[in-house]
Amino acid sequence: MTAAGAPPRGFAVDEFRERTARAQRLMASRGLAGLLLLTEPEVRYFSGFLTQFWQSPTRPWFLIVPAAGDPVAVIPAIGAEAMSRTWVRDIRTWPAPTPDDEGISLLSDTIREILAPGPVGLPMGPETSLRMPLNDFKKLGRTLDGHDFVDAGEIVRTLRMVKSEAEIDKVRFACQAVSGVFERLPELLHSGMADSDVFRTFKIACLEAGVDDVSYLVGGAGPGGYSDIISPPSGRVLQDGDVLILDTGCMFDGYFCDFDRNYAIGRIDDEARRAHDVVWRATEAGLQVARPGARACDVWRAMQDVLTAGGALGNDVGRMGHGLGMQLTEWPSNMGSDETVLEDRMILTLEPGMTFAPGRVMVHEEDIVIREHGPELLTRRAPNEMPVIG
Amino acid sequence: MTAAGAPPRGFAVDEFRERTARAQRLMASRGLAGLLLLTEPEVRYFSGFLTQFWQSPTRPWFLIVPAAGDPVAVIPAIGAEAMSRTWVRDIRTWPAPTPDDEGISLLSDTIREILAPGPVGLPMGPETSLRMPLNDFKKLGRTLDGHDFVDAGEIVRTLRMVKSEAEIDKVRFACQAVSGVFERLPELLHSGMADSDVFRTFKIACLEAGVDDVSYLVGGAGPGGYSDIISPPSGRVLQDGDVLILDTGCMFDGYFCDFDRNYAIGRIDDEARRAHDVVWRATEAGLQVARPGARACDVWRAMQDVLTAGGALGNDVGRMGHGLGMQLTEWPSNMGSDETVLEDRMILTLEPGMTFAPGRVMVHEEDIVIREHGPELLTRRAPNEMPVIG
Repeated sequence: MTAAGAPPRGFAVDEFRERTARAQRLMASRGLAGLLLLTEPEVRYFSGFLTQFWQSPTRPWFLIVPAAGDPVAVIPAIGAEAMSRTWVRDIRTWPAPTPDDEGISLLSDTIREILAPGPVGLPMGPETSLRMPLNDFKKLGRTLDGHDFVDAGEIVRTLRMVKSEAEIDKVRFACQAVSGVFERLPELLHSGMADSDVFRTFKIACLEAGVDDVSYLVGGAGPGGYSDIISPPSGRVLQDGDVLILDTGCMFDGYFCDFDRNYAIGRIDDEARRAHDVVWRATEAGLQVARPGARACDVWRAMQDVLTAGGALGNDVGRMGHGLGMQLTEWPSNMGSDETVLEDRMILTLEPGMTFAPGRVMVHEEDIVIREHGPELLTRRAPNEMPVIG
Repeated sequence: MTAAGAPPRGFAVDEFRERTARAQRLMASRGLAGLLLLTEPEVRYFSGFLTQFWQSPTRPWFLIVPAAGDPVAVIPAIGAEAMSRTWVRDIRTWPAPTPDDEGISLLSDTIREILAPGPVGLPMGPETSLRMPLNDFKKLGRTLDGHDFVDAGEIVRTLRMVKSEAEIDKVRFACQAVSGVFERLPELLHSGMADSDVFRTFKIACLEAGVDDVSYLVGGAGPGGYSDIISPPSGRVLQDGDVLILDTGCMFDGYFCDFDRNYAIGRIDDEARRAHDVVWRATEAGLQVARPGARACDVWRAMQDVLTAGGALGNDVGRMGHGLGMQLTEWPSNMGSDETVLEDRMILTLEPGMTFAPGRVMVHEEDIVIREHGPELLTRRAPNEMPVIG
């Protein structure tokens, strides 16, 4: 039942050492005493700690990356056993939940013990959250003499934006497994099926194809086109003349794919066919431009030009793709204001979308790796014409 | 394929009006001008806005509940269509992503327009996160004259801790669907199976049984017992003499179940059998005590006494169950320090767990609703003796 060709799980310890060393070089250039990491992907990036237990909001988790030396975990006791199987050796626990002191005094003591005086980096800029109670964060600040918190979002972003080959292998596996499901979908779906059953069928097929979780599945269908691409199924029945989109983030070993496919139900509406051709060609234009040295806004511009020429009325998505990895969406954003310079081994989605008629949207998406000699497609390229589901 | 007996999706508009009115009564007694809500469950509780798009960390979402009047959504444009299908009528959008002003000026303008001067409640106490960039939160504070943020975690907790019958129906459906899967598991699994295939088989069976998502599945297996209950599969093969635990949070229409089951592989280890009997009887003791007027710590005490008498060496989980609903874990916590008084229609998990031998843990869990005449079991009660998987 385990899918053929699945890459190994986890990472070599050397990869965590390298991530830590790169972080420490960036910290040194900015005069930071250490990093404090709070979110699931940030903690996992430096430790390898992989668990769905983060779904529970009750307990905060802390990882400190000092200016020199290995990371130190300050975590609830329930996680000690799982953390001990990572490369992290210094693991300090408290008996959570303890709302009156939810790890704060232990964290404060640890920071003061292991970090030299100086600013501590914490991601607090765009696309970040504070994954601990705000009251506790203020309390922590009051206990720390000689340590201020400064924004370290850029350090984390710089590190995580460029992937290792081992990371790329995981995303590629998810992309390939799900590409196969999308290709088989006309055999699995039919006109007259409720969209809730469409979603369920798709999820089961993805699990059977070898992904660990279908963590994200949204979509929509409507006569001649859909109007909304972030919703769960409504119970509506697929009807001839509908256009159906499914957009999914499936995970393998903690890494996401993120792409979509469009289908015509029964027959292809002419306007929708033309719109699909436009977003497909926009993706081709993005593929031509997505190379080391180009900027995210250049990729956007190449796609936008095709959409404009193709009669796009607008786009509420706000960007045309983004980084991808441990999170469904990462940096950069393919949009006019994002001047991030693309580098070898960045993973990007190309996601041109447009309103092609009032209340009707067409969005297309592929996943790629930036490579010296042109992008590597992680997904199997969608056909130019929407497949028809009978 | 849609499971028989599934309750209707969504809620009547009156339920959202009632939630809002209850919040406004609590706000009035505390002199609040409004609530600012940032997280998925909090925004959904007052609006009905249900989407997995929250998986993307890029965009913040804001919902304001004023001291009087209906909630106002301040959200990225990509969500306008989905939000317009909720009962929320005042929807203001910005073209996210816009990292330089990610909704902050629009949010600030809206707060100053619709809220009277006075403190604005924001959950910032135990079990909360700040689901927006810390830098942007500080920026927002600087733009607001006459509004300070104060902790409103207790208001949200008070409201959400007691469920409506419509909410209970959703949790019950998930519990019943997954109970059926757990009961059939000896037919689906076998000794010699890799734990990764065990997880995959279980997930598919749950989807087939009618849940929307298997959002949480952790577990472990080991000879005579497991040592860790929060990990993904390791690839290890089930062997005769193992004890296997699977602990799952499956969702239906945005509501979770959360319970586990233990299985013996091939044969039942004697120590593990005794430990299972102890945690099973501890659950019985919890069921006897869990009534309106009892406190969460009383439920804990009843279970703890059975575990102590049964030879428990300790428990790293830190509590013996918790609230349940839109999140995998909610308030209260069944632990000695939690004096929350139970009320009719609270949903609780009873989760006694213990270390019964060095490095070997036994955890058991059921989901219940507090009712006047004794708890209603949402899950189908586990057998006292672990089922054997051949």
